[in-house]
Amino acid sequence: MTENVLDTRSEDDDKPKKQIKLGIAGLGTVGCGLLAVLEKNGDLIANRSGCEFTIGAVTARDRQRKREVDISAYHWCDNPVDMADPDKVDVVVELIGGSDGPALALARAALGKGLSFVTANKAMIAHHGAELASLAERTGASLRFEAAVAGGIPIVKTIKEGLAANRIDRMHGILNGTGNYILTMMEETGESFENALAKAQALGYAEADPSFDIDGVDTAHKIAILTSLAFGTPPTMNDLPIEGIRNISDIDIAYAKDLGFRIKLLGISRLTKEGKLDQRVHASMVEASEALAKVSGASNAIEAHGDFVGPCMIEGLGAGAGPTASAVMADLIELARGNTGSTFSLPASKLAPLPLLESGERTGEFYVRLRVSDKTGVMADIASALRDEGVSVERLIQRTRASDDSVHLIMTTHETSESRMASVLERFSGLSSVLEKPCMLRIEPI
Amino acid sequence: MTENVLDTRSEDDDKPKKQIKLGIAGLGTVGCGLLAVLEKNGDLIANRSGCEFTIGAVTARDRQRKREVDISAYHWCDNPVDMADPDKVDVVVELIGGSDGPALALARAALGKGLSFVTANKAMIAHHGAELASLAERTGASLRFEAAVAGGIPIVKTIKEGLAANRIDRMHGILNGTGNYILTMMEETGESFENALAKAQALGYAEADPSFDIDGVDTAHKIAILTSLAFGTPPTMNDLPIEGIRNISDIDIAYAKDLGFRIKLLGISRLTKEGKLDQRVHASMVEASEALAKVSGASNAIEAHGDFVGPCMIEGLGAGAGPTASAVMADLIELARGNTGSTFSLPASKLAPLPLLESGERTGEFYVRLRVSDKTGVMADIASALRDEGVSVERLIQRTRASDDSVHLIMTTHETSESRMASVLERFSGLSSVLEKPCMLRIEPI
Repeated sequence: MTENVLDTRSEDDDKPKKQIKLGIAGLGTVGCGLLAVLEKNGDLIANRSGCEFTIGAVTARDRQRKREVDISAYHWCDNPVDMADPDKVDVVVELIGGSDGPALALARAALGKGLSFVTANKAMIAHHGAELASLAERTGASLRFEAAVAGGIPIVKTIKEGLAANRIDRMHGILNGTGNYILTMMEETGESFENALAKAQALGYAEADPSFDIDGVDTAHKIAILTSLAFGTPPTMNDLPIEGIRNISDIDIAYAKDLGFRIKLLGISRLTKEGKLDQRVHASMVEASEALAKVSGASNAIEAHGDFVGPCMIEGLGAGAGPTASAVMADLIELARGNTGSTFSLPASKLAPLPLLESGERTGEFYVRLRVSDKTGVMADIASALRDEGVSVERLIQRTRASDDSVHLIMTTHETSESRMASVLERFSGLSSVLEKPCMLRIEPI
Repeated sequence: MTENVLDTRSEDDDKPKKQIKLGIAGLGTVGCGLLAVLEKNGDLIANRSGCEFTIGAVTARDRQRKREVDISAYHWCDNPVDMADPDKVDVVVELIGGSDGPALALARAALGKGLSFVTANKAMIAHHGAELASLAERTGASLRFEAAVAGGIPIVKTIKEGLAANRIDRMHGILNGTGNYILTMMEETGESFENALAKAQALGYAEADPSFDIDGVDTAHKIAILTSLAFGTPPTMNDLPIEGIRNISDIDIAYAKDLGFRIKLLGISRLTKEGKLDQRVHASMVEASEALAKVSGASNAIEAHGDFVGPCMIEGLGAGAGPTASAVMADLIELARGNTGSTFSLPASKLAPLPLLESGERTGEFYVRLRVSDKTGVMADIASALRDEGVSVERLIQRTRASDDSVHLIMTTHETSESRMASVLERFSGLSSVLEKPCMLRIEPI
């Protein structure tokens, strides 16, 4: 009887005949994670893929750096593009990062020579995905990037294949674990953004320069890729409005809770009824009872809504060595199985832009917090500004601050447009009784 | 410039050259759903798959039955197996159902002739999957069954491909929407199992004969398939302990809530540290704070835990025309794209059973509810039974019933084995003060 492949006692007496030589560029967290997957699960992967993966060459910024894995046995390339050599490797795995520079040079070199290319590089795919997809199709190579969006969560595969029969009209998700960790900390402990960020950095969740995470750029790269997969557009960062979480205060976290919301940094991409694309990244008020609101810590989650499947949500770990390496390896296994297909959901030549929803046109409900001086007539000024711009208020709460003589006015609006809201905020800012820049957050229907 | 495929104004001037003629067997809810997908999203699917799907033949029990779609234009087969004809069709889609009978005859006929076969039939795959996979591999046909597990949720693809780099050690999930709808109703309205079932039937969630849903058989079919995909075993219903939700009372639903749990019908499959397979279906107490506990109504959700990816959960609609047709169509698109591979995660010849965990060996915590007469000495009898079998109690609550002179004793235990628990329950049942069969539920760590 055949021995089960998970049975640790089994002897692997029929090794797969097929071999794939990997060129691994980048030996940081994810690169070392990939070597660990191959070492620990190599037999299982060989059985599942019908293929033995070997290391044809490696490269990284610093050959001597101390690593958890021993790389002395692998062929070393000083220059990443030297790896794009069909004599040395069959597939290039790019884990260097950065939208341009050596990563892009390597991608162009490898795909140009017909070498399949697997990457975790969201910035490069968001900026140059369409060009690289065309190149891959021209040379018959495969370009795969499961690890580029939401780490270990197989969301690229889900959108491109699992939900391929559907006209998707909306996707939204928590796509950055660092940002979600910070917001969760602020909510659970009441601490400030700065303290929560420092904690995230101490735990290794946030980089020394955390701007891509907390300013929403990382989320934007990911939603741009998902947009392309779902809506057949070339991925682009142009006209993608991005706001991060740097200005979220513990005060707003607390008021959100009082109002039955949680604040989440969301990537959102949807198609309006008129067929316009509404793509954006910003901190959002989400009803606390929604599954997405309960995704806490460094987890990621994405919900897609298709016309036949309805809502479908996936949750898991969006970063880290293990989850990201799992996604890179999944792409490699699919290559070994011969599951290639086009890079995005459509051949590159069929990717085409959609008309964009002007950001001012978008309508929704809003949360606004004002710090105002506690004197007569303030409310009349506020109310006039709202009336004049045609914005009606759903809830209004006034809270006195203990520390000074100012009060907080917290309001949520009925549905209105972004442009009307912008006018109202400008009016508010011009009032002498309004003591600091108004805080506005969008209430996102999930 | 290329027009975006989602742009409804676009003219499709380069139709795909490739055609796939479908033979559709079964024109009930799912069959008509599939025809609706093809009609509504045919252009989109052609662009994504590079292939135009046409209907080569249809069959169903009753040709004359009133349907939402017009089938008069399609070639009709009186006998399903007549569809297994390469002159008529390229791929057979089986939506008849049932583990044997016409569905199995058609599967054998189609795969035997090298025709690829797509099915939503969980019972057939759970019982005959290994045989059919061997046959498919022998003739070079493809056998796919995404719709067989959890409706529209692409869990087959996720386990087989998305998480393929991982050694999975545990999967658990809500795999039956009818059962979950009934439990959710009971929890939200406090009504009895019978009333909640009647409501589910009135809404069309539950069949006239609901036994497969509420007795756990449907869940068992699905977990048997997932076990095969994750652990490389041939799918089998042998030695799969199954308990349903017929005996769950509104009383236990209420006590579960008091104790911080929710009751969910779970399919569970895990590998012990010793490499033994522990596969089972039963109503389980799940901590109310867990994401799985919050999956309500007719939704399904599955969580898998891999050694690199960590936990990954997918939630969506597990049944119904739209979601199921979405999954069937996803399989067809993958066929058109040439993404075939083996039926399960491994070639059929490599599927091998794992040693099973004896059900008595399994350890865990338990919930027990006893109805006892309210007199002196009862507690001493209960305590003796627990002491003699070496089971220690974590929490004990006594509640007097208003309606008679009996009381409820509710206890949760510390970790103990199923066999010890069985002995305790036998001792309890033998006590004259215990007025009805004890109710026992397993507390499932998620």
